[in-house]
Amino acid sequence: MLTIGVDIGGTKVAAGVVDHDGQILDKVKYPTPTNDPRQLAEVVGRAVAELRSRKPDGEIGAVGVGVAGFVDEDRATVQVAVNLGLRDEPLRERVQQHVGLPVVIENDANAAAWAEARFGAGRGSDHIVCVTLGTGIGGGLVLGGALHRGRYGVAAEVGHYRMVPHGRRCACGNHGCWEQYASGRALVAEGQDLARTDPQRAERLLKLADGVVEQVSGRIITQAAMEGDPAALECFRIVGEWAGLGLADLAAILDPECFVLGGGVSDAGDIILDPVRASFARHVSGRPGRRLAEVRVAELGGEAGIAGAGDLARY
Amino acid sequence: MLTIGVDIGGTKVAAGVVDHDGQILDKVKYPTPTNDPRQLAEVVGRAVAELRSRKPDGEIGAVGVGVAGFVDEDRATVQVAVNLGLRDEPLRERVQQHVGLPVVIENDANAAAWAEARFGAGRGSDHIVCVTLGTGIGGGLVLGGALHRGRYGVAAEVGHYRMVPHGRRCACGNHGCWEQYASGRALVAEGQDLARTDPQRAERLLKLADGVVEQVSGRIITQAAMEGDPAALECFRIVGEWAGLGLADLAAILDPECFVLGGGVSDAGDIILDPVRASFARHVSGRPGRRLAEVRVAELGGEAGIAGAGDLARY
Amino acid sequence: MLTIGVDIGGTKVAAGVVDHDGQILDKVKYPTPTNDPRQLAEVVGRAVAELRSRKPDGEIGAVGVGVAGFVDEDRATVQVAVNLGLRDEPLRERVQQHVGLPVVIENDANAAAWAEARFGAGRGSDHIVCVTLGTGIGGGLVLGGALHRGRYGVAAEVGHYRMVPHGRRCACGNHGCWEQYASGRALVAEGQDLARTDPQRAERLLKLADGVVEQVSGRIITQAAMEGDPAALECFRIVGEWAGLGLADLAAILDPECFVLGGGVSDAGDIILDPVRASFARHVSGRPGRRLAEVRVAELGGEAGIAGAGDLARY
Amino acid sequence: MLTIGVDIGGTKVAAGVVDHDGQILDKVKYPTPTNDPRQLAEVVGRAVAELRSRKPDGEIGAVGVGVAGFVDEDRATVQVAVNLGLRDEPLRERVQQHVGLPVVIENDANAAAWAEARFGAGRGSDHIVCVTLGTGIGGGLVLGGALHRGRYGVAAEVGHYRMVPHGRRCACGNHGCWEQYASGRALVAEGQDLARTDPQRAERLLKLADGVVEQVSGRIITQAAMEGDPAALECFRIVGEWAGLGLADLAAILDPECFVLGGGVSDAGDIILDPVRASFARHVSGRPGRRLAEVRVAELGGEAGIAGAGDLARY
Repeated sequence: MLTIGVDIGGTKVAAGVVDHDGQILDKVKYPTPTNDPRQLAEVVGRAVAELRSRKPDGEIGAVGVGVAGFVDEDRATVQVAVNLGLRDEPLRERVQQHVGLPVVIENDANAAAWAEARFGAGRGSDHIVCVTLGTGIGGGLVLGGALHRGRYGVAAEVGHYRMVPHGRRCACGNHGCWEQYASGRALVAEGQDLARTDPQRAERLLKLADGVVEQVSGRIITQAAMEGDPAALECFRIVGEWAGLGLADLAAILDPECFVLGGGVSDAGDIILDPVRASFARHVSGRPGRRLAEVRVAELGGEAGIAGAGDLARY
Repeated sequence: MLTIGVDIGGTKVAAGVVDHDGQILDKVKYPTPTNDPRQLAEVVGRAVAELRSRKPDGEIGAVGVGVAGFVDEDRATVQVAVNLGLRDEPLRERVQQHVGLPVVIENDANAAAWAEARFGAGRGSDHIVCVTLGTGIGGGLVLGGALHRGRYGVAAEVGHYRMVPHGRRCACGNHGCWEQYASGRALVAEGQDLARTDPQRAERLLKLADGVVEQVSGRIITQAAMEGDPAALECFRIVGEWAGLGLADLAAILDPECFVLGGGVSDAGDIILDPVRASFARHVSGRPGRRLAEVRVAELGGEAGIAGAGDLARY
Repeated sequence: MLTIGVDIGGTKVAAGVVDHDGQILDKVKYPTPTNDPRQLAEVVGRAVAELRSRKPDGEIGAVGVGVAGFVDEDRATVQVAVNLGLRDEPLRERVQQHVGLPVVIENDANAAAWAEARFGAGRGSDHIVCVTLGTGIGGGLVLGGALHRGRYGVAAEVGHYRMVPHGRRCACGNHGCWEQYASGRALVAEGQDLARTDPQRAERLLKLADGVVEQVSGRIITQAAMEGDPAALECFRIVGEWAGLGLADLAAILDPECFVLGGGVSDAGDIILDPVRASFARHVSGRPGRRLAEVRVAELGGEAGIAGAGDLARY
Repeated sequence: MLTIGVDIGGTKVAAGVVDHDGQILDKVKYPTPTNDPRQLAEVVGRAVAELRSRKPDGEIGAVGVGVAGFVDEDRATVQVAVNLGLRDEPLRERVQQHVGLPVVIENDANAAAWAEARFGAGRGSDHIVCVTLGTGIGGGLVLGGALHRGRYGVAAEVGHYRMVPHGRRCACGNHGCWEQYASGRALVAEGQDLARTDPQRAERLLKLADGVVEQVSGRIITQAAMEGDPAALECFRIVGEWAGLGLADLAAILDPECFVLGGGVSDAGDIILDPVRASFARHVSGRPGRRLAEVRVAELGGEAGIAGAGDLARY
C-alpha cells in the first residue's frame, strides 16, 4: 500500500505519494488559500486527487496531513494554527469528505520528526529527540519507537521550556524560553547586538549587510562564519552553547539514543554542531560514565514533512 | 498469577506478594547487607522464598526488584547504585539463581511511578509524570501507558535538568539542577537561610529547633507551616514556586494528563500543593487556552515501590 | 545670592529662581524646541532673562541647567541626549553667550538627586543613592556629601547594571538590565502579561483597560492596587522584589545611609515601598548585624530638577 | 613627616615606616596573637615602638592600622573581624594607649586600594575601583580622590553584590554573589568540576594534582594555563568572563577611570586580563561611544596594605 503525505505550510500545500521506505514517488504543489478552512480542505482534496489519478486504482490507501499548529490527540481537529487562521477546526472530517480515504491530521514538526526517525538521521533508534532550530525551535519526540504526542496533542513544544528564569521575553507570553537563546532568531539577535555595540569586531557582518545593523541576517552570519569570520563564529558558539544546554536537559529527562537537529541553523553543519556537541557533553548530568546520546543533523530536509505525514497515515 | 515485588533500600530490603490490582497480600523485611552484591542477592532470595513458602505452589510467577540506582535498559544490570555500592552488577542473573523464577530489575523511582500510574493517583491516565520531592528530586515517566526508561535506562532524572544557568552547585557536578530549588533539601536550605539572616522572622522555626539554625529541618518547617507560621509558609511558597516552574517545563516537553507529586515535601498537602499549582498555571506555555495537566498527590506512600516492582515483573 | 535652575525636558523647558534653601521663588515654562541646539540655548536664555527681569539687578549669580543626557565631567558639553537630538553639544558655551552669567550643565537625574539630598528626603545624610523608578530607572549618587559624576560624567546609570545574566533585552543593547525588572515599564509588562495569560485573575485590570490588554497602564495598575485588587498588588510585589534586590546590590557596593526612591512607580507609596523594603532587608549581605540603609520616598516631586540644577550652579 | 602602616593579617602583623611617596623605609613582622584584642594591641604597640626606635625622635607622626574586618566609619572600632575574633572592638583606643600617637583603623582592602590609587596602578586617577580576586573578592573605592568608606564603613563589599539571582550559595548567606563566580575559589571550582566530569580534557590538571580532583588548586591551574593547557585556559576564560561582567556593572554605577585588579588570580597576567577586558568591553552599557575604563593589574603586591594604612594615617 502507498499513502499520500500532505504538508500544509504558510504559503504552499505540498503533497506526495509515499512508499513503505519513505520515498516520495510523485509530488504536487498548490498555493495555500488564506484563512479559509473550506478552501484549504478543497485544495488538499485536489492535490490528493491529482496524485491518485496518476496511480492505478486502489494503490493509495490513506492520507496523512501535516499542519503547523496544535492538533488534538485524536488526530482529527486542529486546536489552533495561527498562521493558517484555524481554530477548533475539524480538518480530518473536511478533508475526508473530499478524498474518501482514511485521513489523519498531524502536527508538522511531529510528522517531520517521524520521518527522520523512520527514514532519516534517526533510523534504527527507538528513542529520538528531533529539534528544529528554525526561526523558533520546534520539536518532535519518538519514544519507544512511537511518536509521543502527549495527552492533548501538544507535547514536544521544546522551544518553550524555560532556559533562563526571568530571561528574554518570548512571543508565547513567557520569559526565558529556549527558543529565545538557541534559534535562528537568537542567532540573528547575537549578530545584530554585536554589530550595534562593537561595529569594529562585526566589520565583516556589517559589510555583508550593506552597513545596516537590521539587515544582519542568519544567511549573512552563516556566510561570514563559513569564511572564517571570528565574530560570526562567536555568534554560532553562543547559540551552540545554549542549544547544547537544552539537549543536556532533554537528555536528563528523556535519555534518548540520538538527537536530530534540523532547521535553518543546522545548515551551518560543523560550525554549529561542534559547539552544540561540546556544550552538551560538558553540561549533561551523569558525567563521566553516562553513555552520551549522539547529536546528528537531519537528513531529509524539506521533504520530511510529506514523508512523515504519509507514513503516519499507516498507523 | 501473583508476583513478588522487592524494594531494596539503603537500610532494608522489603518484599511483598502483589496481585493484579497492586494489592500487597503479604510482606517481609530484612536488613540490607552492605556493599556485598552476593549477600544482597541472597537476602532477596531468602525474602522471595519466605513469601513463596506461605502460598500454594505455582501461584507466584515472577519477581520484580526495585533498586535506587541506574538500571540498564535490559532490566538486568545495575550500572551504578552509589548507596548500595553496586557497579556494573548483573543483579538479575544473581537473583535468578536464587529464586528460579523470571526476574526483572527496575529503578526504584520508576517502579514507584508505575505503581502510582496503575493503582494510585495516576490510574486511568496514559501520560503521567511522577515527581518525588524527597531529599532530592526523583522522577518516573509513564508515556502512552508504558514506563519510559530511555535508551540507556536513565530517563526521568528530572531532578537534574537545569533550572537556573550558573545556579546552585549540585552533588551531580552540575549547577542549577532543579533539585537544588524544589526538593526537601531546598526547603531546609530556605528555612535555615531565613533563620540565619532574619532570626526575628524565623522565631518559631528557631524555637522548634532549640535555637540551633542547623537543626531547622523539613519536619520542623512543615510543623510550623501547619500551625500557620508565616516564615515557614514562605519557605513552602518559594519551594512551591520552583516546583511549579519545573512542572511547566515538563508540560511543555511531555504534555502529560497529570503530575503525581510524592516524597516527603508532598506530605504537607495543600501547603505545598497550592503554590505549586499556582506557579504551574502561571508559568506553563500556551496559556490561556491550553488544557492544564492536573497536579495530584501520590496515594500509595512507601509501598509504591513494592507494588510497582511486582507489577512490572508481569511485562 | 540666588541662582536659576533650568530643567530641559522632552516637551518643556522649566526654569526657576532658587534660593539657598532650595525654595523656588519664581518660575517660567516654555515649549522645548526640537532638534535645534541653537534654539534650545535661545529658549534657555529667554527663560533666564525673564526671571532676572523680575528680580533686582545682581541678585541672580549663576545658572544651572539640567538635561536628560550624558554630560561631560567638565559640566559643559552634552555628549549625547537622544530625546533632544544633541550630540557633542557645547551647551554651556552657547547658553553662557545668552545669559552672561556662570553656567553649569548637569545630568537631570543628578540634579534631582542633589536636590533630594540637600533639601528633600535625603537631607542630613552624606551618603545617598537616589533611584528614579520612572519609565526606565535613573539614578544619582551623593557620596561623602558630593555629587558623584564619575570620571566621564556618566556614573549612576544604575538602571543598566545587569540584574539577570542573559535576561530581558534592553534598549541599551544589553540583556538583563535592572530597568527591565523594576521600572514603570516593567510594572506595565507584568500587568499586561497577567492580562494576556490569565484574564480571569486580571479581571479588574482588564475592566479598567476597556478589555484591551495593551491599554493596561501603570496608572491603571496603581489604581487597581489602591482598590486592593490582588492581581495589581501582585504586579507591585514582583516589581518591588526586583527593586529591593537592586538596592541590596547597591548597598553592598556603596553602603549609603539612605535610598531615595522617586519616579512614577514610587507614587504608589506603601504599595511599592513595603515589598521593596522587605526584599532589600532579605537580600542585603551582612545580615543580621548590618545597619540597614533607610528606604525613603522622594519629597520634591517634579521640581527637584530645577532646585538641584540651581543649587549645583553654586559649586 | 613619616607614618607607620600596620597590616594585621590572620597569621602575621606586618608594620612599616611609610614616607610621602608610599615607600616603605623600614619593616618588622610579628606573629598575630589569636583571639585576644589586648595582646593584639600590644603586638601592634611593640612593632610601632621598634620602628620608632630606629628613627630620630619626632619623625613618626601617626599610625594607620589595616585589619581584615568591618571598621566603623569613625575609623576607631572594628565592628567584626571574623578571623581575628574581634567584635565591637575599640582597637584605636587600645593601640593609642600603647603608641601615644594619633591612630586610625582601616579596613585592609581599603588600605590596599588607597595605596594602589596613590602610589600604584591607579596613580594619577581620581576615580578608581580596586578589585581583589583572591580566595573571595574584596574591593576598595577611591572616588573623587577620596577613599569611599560608606555611611557605616562597609562600602566596597563588591564580592557580595549579586551576579546571578538564585545562583550559587555564598558563605555570606546569600546566593549568586560575584565572588562565587570570579574569585580564586571559583577558578578552583571550575578546574575541579572539569576534572570530575571530563577527566580526559582535564588530563594535565589531574596529572599536576597527582590524579586527585580535590588537589586541583589555583596554583596548578595557573601553571597549566601558562603551559598552554586548553582546559586550564578555559577555566580562566570562564572566570574572566564573569569578572568582566562585574566590572561592567561597576562601571555603569561608578564610571571609574580605571579598575585595578589584584589578588592571586591576577598573578596570571594576560591569561586572566585578556578575557576580563574582552568581557568588560562586550558587556558594558553605553557601547559604542562610551569611553571605557582601563583595566590594570595592581603594582604594589603584598605591601600595599602597609603603604596604604600608613598613608591614610595622614588624613
